[in-house]
Amino acid sequence: MANDKKKLVEAITSMEDDFAQWYTDVVKKAELIDYSSVKGCMIIKPAGYGIWENIQKELDIRFKETGVENVYMPLFIPESLLQREKDHVEGFVPEVAWVTHGGLNELQERLCVRPTSETLFCDFYHDLIQSYRDLPKLYNQWCSVVRWEKETRPFLRSREFLWQEGHTAHATAEEAKERTIQMLNLYADFCEEVLAMPVIRGQKTEKEKFAGAEATYTIEALMHDGKALQSGTSHNFGDGFARAFEIQYTDKENKLQYVHQTSWGLSTRLIGGIIMVHGDDSGLVLPPRIAPVQAVVIPIQQRKEGVLEKAKEICAALGKVCRAKLDDSDKSPGWKFSEQEMRGIPVRIELGPKDIEAGKCVVVRRDTREKIEVALDELSAKLPQILETIQSDMFARAKAHRDAHIWDAHNYEELKEIAEHKPGFIRGMWCGEQACEDKLKEDFTVTSRCMPFHDQEQIADTCVCCGKPAHRLVYWGKSY
Amino acid sequence: MANDKKKLVEAITSMEDDFAQWYTDVVKKAELIDYSSVKGCMIIKPAGYGIWENIQKELDIRFKETGVENVYMPLFIPESLLQREKDHVEGFVPEVAWVTHGGLNELQERLCVRPTSETLFCDFYHDLIQSYRDLPKLYNQWCSVVRWEKETRPFLRSREFLWQEGHTAHATAEEAKERTIQMLNLYADFCEEVLAMPVIRGQKTEKEKFAGAEATYTIEALMHDGKALQSGTSHNFGDGFARAFEIQYTDKENKLQYVHQTSWGLSTRLIGGIIMVHGDDSGLVLPPRIAPVQAVVIPIQQRKEGVLEKAKEICAALGKVCRAKLDDSDKSPGWKFSEQEMRGIPVRIELGPKDIEAGKCVVVRRDTREKIEVALDELSAKLPQILETIQSDMFARAKAHRDAHIWDAHNYEELKEIAEHKPGFIRGMWCGEQACEDKLKEDFTVTSRCMPFHDQEQIADTCVCCGKPAHRLVYWGKSY
Repeated sequence: MANDKKKLVEAITSMEDDFAQWYTDVVKKAELIDYSSVKGCMIIKPAGYGIWENIQKELDIRFKETGVENVYMPLFIPESLLQREKDHVEGFVPEVAWVTHGGLNELQERLCVRPTSETLFCDFYHDLIQSYRDLPKLYNQWCSVVRWEKETRPFLRSREFLWQEGHTAHATAEEAKERTIQMLNLYADFCEEVLAMPVIRGQKTEKEKFAGAEATYTIEALMHDGKALQSGTSHNFGDGFARAFEIQYTDKENKLQYVHQTSWGLSTRLIGGIIMVHGDDSGLVLPPRIAPVQAVVIPIQQRKEGVLEKAKEICAALGKVCRAKLDDSDKSPGWKFSEQEMRGIPVRIELGPKDIEAGKCVVVRRDTREKIEVALDELSAKLPQILETIQSDMFARAKAHRDAHIWDAHNYEELKEIAEHKPGFIRGMWCGEQACEDKLKEDFTVTSRCMPFHDQEQIADTCVCCGKPAHRLVYWGKSY
Repeated sequence: MANDKKKLVEAITSMEDDFAQWYTDVVKKAELIDYSSVKGCMIIKPAGYGIWENIQKELDIRFKETGVENVYMPLFIPESLLQREKDHVEGFVPEVAWVTHGGLNELQERLCVRPTSETLFCDFYHDLIQSYRDLPKLYNQWCSVVRWEKETRPFLRSREFLWQEGHTAHATAEEAKERTIQMLNLYADFCEEVLAMPVIRGQKTEKEKFAGAEATYTIEALMHDGKALQSGTSHNFGDGFARAFEIQYTDKENKLQYVHQTSWGLSTRLIGGIIMVHGDDSGLVLPPRIAPVQAVVIPIQQRKEGVLEKAKEICAALGKVCRAKLDDSDKSPGWKFSEQEMRGIPVRIELGPKDIEAGKCVVVRRDTREKIEVALDELSAKLPQILETIQSDMFARAKAHRDAHIWDAHNYEELKEIAEHKPGFIRGMWCGEQACEDKLKEDFTVTSRCMPFHDQEQIADTCVCCGKPAHRLVYWGKSY
């Protein structure tokens, strides 16, 4: 048994030795993904796709509660359509895939495989929206998009990924801004409540904002290695796209007005975030609310009379209060324990002949490895509580880790010291010049992550880079 | 009011005048789709996508009950991979879209946008499956696929469509065959129970089977105009793909064996089927179990005190027993009635000041237009029954229509007479020669729809086409 377990754990590199390799090992050994014959594209296996299904389910409910409706737009964008908004096309053209042939014929116009669908939605809205009565339009789609990245990593940067993209059109600038912030807060609450992943909410700088947006808002999470992960973004387009695509409506006074638009997206990238916030040297650790399997029942000495029957009975009962599974394969219990840990299943329930005799079982928490004896007749009542405790403990731990890795830099020297030796977010004032952002990126691969909403402390009077007067606090960091 | 209503109804052609135009009018006026700037690709609007979401939800539950797990495979297939199975590549190459450039560079190898994913799953299974312990693999994916059709029609034939494709691998030929039939029956039950759409279950002939399959099974539904719609297919590949892709496992005796595979798919095409089986001259008629909105509450004289409040209260209460919606827009009630009919919402609930005084409302069935007075305090209890009655009545009507349009042809002359004058399925014996299928297609655009499972009557001794001895009953028909 001990040997079995060792083998599976040894299959992954330790986080301290090589975080990048640990990550790659976990996504593979926890069976989240497989590499495919298509360079830079991944196969999302059931254990990985199950996480995405739960993300979809939870987010979709939250979207619909705010009036959002789902639609499906074409996969392809004609080249001429992509080129209608100047900043947007410049941002995306270097990384799109082009379809040039349909069947045996060359196409008259190239089609790009959507990297994002602003242009398609705008083209659609141009015809759809006539009057103030048609507003707002609150549409979303779940789909895959393609960006021809040179360097790829599973979930984090992939040539094709799954996401949702919301696209809304409003009568006024105020409404559009409100919706942008509303969706950012929805993302943030979702990350914190469901993924146990604390995030910083804030605004991107001009340099870092989305191609074609007036303002981009972001949630930034801190990974275990101290790097930031942009985990969701929400863009306010003002009337920029509306002017490029002539999306106008007649208002109540019968005057022609441009609509104001937003878009917001969240992707399978977030699965990379879950792994890097919660994982440990034994593999994945999934927050119960997002885990496809929340509890696995592992019978001990399962060939002994009555053990498997009892395990099945317990699993069926648990199925009513959580997502439970029985592992009755012919692997050894030690191997099964090790697999449960690798896959990050929040609890395992060990049940042997002696346990059954004593009317109890042992619940083992994945996050703390704590063993909890529970009477069999109390299991269905207690397990949901245990799962909720794990969920909140995981959030608290992730938050404590994040908060312990936020450093203040009052000047360039302090920032240099932190960037070189202390992984985490760096709080530092910024003068507003892109030159300073460029310099910090060049010198330390540190970028402005966001200008946070809830932390606008004036920690110094001068820019952390150039020393000129500064009024804006920025969270800086290395990032994925 | 009467005028308003007339306007919306007049917006669609009558079925008898021009069925094809009626169909096009309905998909557009019921706001199921919109045309896009991408030729042959459609925009699926909320009312259409909502139907697909319900199809997904229902099917996904049924799939998972049989042990199926969801995955996600890449959108692209390298040309060399597509070419590994000879029949398969010949079947699909004429209608695939090719990506030749990624970003600013030409690709070394062309990638096709998946028309279906057998080759990707086989490539995946080649590495994944080693031992009998790894079997069966029961994977499915929900995605979009692309086929470069020349003539397109919304839902029925589109360059991009949404579907699910299941791909399974089994240890034995028997298991693969069982799974193929199991999934076909699952599709058929789903169509009949949820979509109220009766189907004929059967096997495709050699000519009509899927490129690369050993056997293809199909469900065939009859549309209102008497044409058949292939509504779902399930393919048994035997070990053909396994041999082409070298997918082998070691069995319990440690001998190397090829796996046996299946695939099965069902698509947004089915939405076209729902429209053409149930629709009428006022628009769409949705079976309650699949309708995104099952009941719309329409207040009469909604500006009168208390009307809107009561309507909201009733809608909130109904929300607990069905998918209910309030239409409190400033359109006239007549217009709202007409919209409810166009959109195929199973019932509308009319509620005016006098109704409220009398403590009742009027429930109007979409399918029969029957008006049912219901006491307000009994509405939540009665509405689910009314919806179930509509569901079963719709199935019975569709089945009666289908059964009234099945004709027996004992020889070529009879078949000619039916093909030219009687829309519907034609029962006719077949000798087994493809030449006869080719001739009937050439002469009457009639194709073999299937060799039915549950109807193997020997209605004649000779082939309906060539007159030679024949033992197989075939359902023939014109089709979409």
